Amino acid sequence: MAIDQTIGMQSIQFQNSPYIISSASVVGPKEGEGPLGEYFDLVAPDAGLGEQTWEQAESTMQKEALQTAMEKAKLTLPQIRYLFGGDLLAQLIATSFGNGETNIPLFGLYGACSTCGESLALAAMIVAGGYADYAAALTSSHFGSAEKEFRFPLGYGNQRPLSATWTVTGSGAFILSAQKSHVRVCGVTPGRIVDMGVKDNMNMGACMAPAACDTIYQNFMDFNRQPQDYDRIVTGDLGTIGQKLLIQLLKEKGFDISQQHMDCGIEVYDAEKQDTHAGGSGCGCSAVVLAALILPKLRQGVWKRVLFVPTGALLSKVSFNEGRSIPGIAHAVVLEHC
Amino acid sequence: MAIDQTIGMQSIQFQNSPYIISSASVVGPKEGEGPLGEYFDLVAPDAGLGEQTWEQAESTMQKEALQTAMEKAKLTLPQIRYLFGGDLLAQLIATSFGNGETNIPLFGLYGACSTCGESLALAAMIVAGGYADYAAALTSSHFGSAEKEFRFPLGYGNQRPLSATWTVTGSGAFILSAQKSHVRVCGVTPGRIVDMGVKDNMNMGACMAPAACDTIYQNFMDFNRQPQDYDRIVTGDLGTIGQKLLIQLLKEKGFDISQQHMDCGIEVYDAEKQDTHAGGSGCGCSAVVLAALILPKLRQGVWKRVLFVPTGALLSKVSFNEGRSIPGIAHAVVLEHC
Repeated sequence: MAIDQTIGMQSIQFQNSPYIISSASVVGPKEGEGPLGEYFDLVAPDAGLGEQTWEQAESTMQKEALQTAMEKAKLTLPQIRYLFGGDLLAQLIATSFGNGETNIPLFGLYGACSTCGESLALAAMIVAGGYADYAAALTSSHFGSAEKEFRFPLGYGNQRPLSATWTVTGSGAFILSAQKSHVRVCGVTPGRIVDMGVKDNMNMGACMAPAACDTIYQNFMDFNRQPQDYDRIVTGDLGTIGQKLLIQLLKEKGFDISQQHMDCGIEVYDAEKQDTHAGGSGCGCSAVVLAALILPKLRQGVWKRVLFVPTGALLSKVSFNEGRSIPGIAHAVVLEHC
Repeated sequence: MAIDQTIGMQSIQFQNSPYIISSASVVGPKEGEGPLGEYFDLVAPDAGLGEQTWEQAESTMQKEALQTAMEKAKLTLPQIRYLFGGDLLAQLIATSFGNGETNIPLFGLYGACSTCGESLALAAMIVAGGYADYAAALTSSHFGSAEKEFRFPLGYGNQRPLSATWTVTGSGAFILSAQKSHVRVCGVTPGRIVDMGVKDNMNMGACMAPAACDTIYQNFMDFNRQPQDYDRIVTGDLGTIGQKLLIQLLKEKGFDISQQHMDCGIEVYDAEKQDTHAGGSGCGCSAVVLAALILPKLRQGVWKRVLFVPTGALLSKVSFNEGRSIPGIAHAVVLEHC
């Protein structure tokens, strides 16, 4: 019989924790100019990355991120057994066109900006289950392709309210394996859809905060933990407005995470200097901040345990135009120094 | 250490096969009038299912399919630990809005029409890995929402070439568990992207046949099997043109599957009477045919072993309008009577 690895209502605690043995981040020039600029593996001099379209540029970032992560781990493509990948675009075209040449069997994932968490959770479960020696998790977003997909053509030059976030042009890749490294995935709390009826696609933080609250609360319950059991609780892209909401929502449930909370969307830009309003967003946002900032701190042992919770707003232009709400989802991954 | 369950280049052979303990199919009126009409669990009298939009109608089919599958298995929502779900729409809105009320942690998946195979493969791996007592796989498609998403508004009344397929209005749900039943998932062969440069979105069979060939060939290699080791080799929605191509492509690789091959897209409609041209398609197509036709034959032992291979065309209107090709992907699941 299989080993029971379930814990609480919706979490997994691995009997044999898989490790993140390698990671890489590729970003555009705006992200390179931000406070984390020096920590990214590759900063493209141009957001077009020499391609004809924003979508192709995004695919190219995925290729570069995966290639860099593989090189760091001294692996070749055929050694990666399965790839868990996704992006924000309709029908995941950044992922489809970015990974055709790799020949790695692909599980296409969509969880909006939570996809980085979804891909890490599944890759970890698959490696810990003995289904792959090496699995890769890969996500991306691009400001140009995302604005086109969800909002207005860039040439239209619409004004953005202060609650809006700026989609990160970037891709993060992670290689998971049973092979020991200094960061392990100890557990996951896959999230459920939480819809509080918010309809404002220029305030994604408000759409996602209730889902982040739900997943973090469930993680505390399932693992029987308190906020201080984590050095950092890192959400994906709530931004400044979503951060306030999340802290308040969790306070109402009896948990104060104000000392531990960090948001990748707030970290990635200098909002004032870079005019990014509420912060960065996109499933590239949490991915590049994980690769560039969080994993190095864990590797060095500066942080011992981090709850990484990418957050997604399940928005489409069709549902938005039909007047539907924007449900949220968040997938949590427990990372530990070892 | 985890048990090594990998086999060959890209397959898994389960040490502890999970079982499909329950399934359900919900379809629209056109599918109800087709040759499999009497086998579906629920035939809606109207393709709108009483909803305001095609997208909401698709969400409602997902809800009904999951509910029906749960009732058959005598399960309640909280017993389903994880849901693996997807559809064809941008940002998976049929799935997001169909499953918010279930409160089941959701892994959103996108593999175009191959998503039924992707969801079954992951659900099987997660149950066999001891991560869930019960997991559900759920996919859907809808003729109205798909035409709007990928081609022309229905009101435009465009002519369809004979190579075109008709998107199935339907949803299929499957409950997987370690609890014994008469159909088990013995293995999976997750597929990789195959892009032969086909650009015709009115000939999806030609886009997907090379990917189906690649996955089936790899399954034969990894499991060291011949076509006659399967009672049926069932593709998702190649249709009549894709079927010819697949059989020819596999002949060129030394395998004749003409005796074993069946295609869900060909089975679901009476193409001549129902004017569906090359056949049915969509990630509801393979799902409802699996639930209504294939699983009952396996349960009864009429067929002992089936290779189920949903096929996907990784198309989006953005990539299509940018002149890109339509890559294919196919995920295979080995099903056995027991």
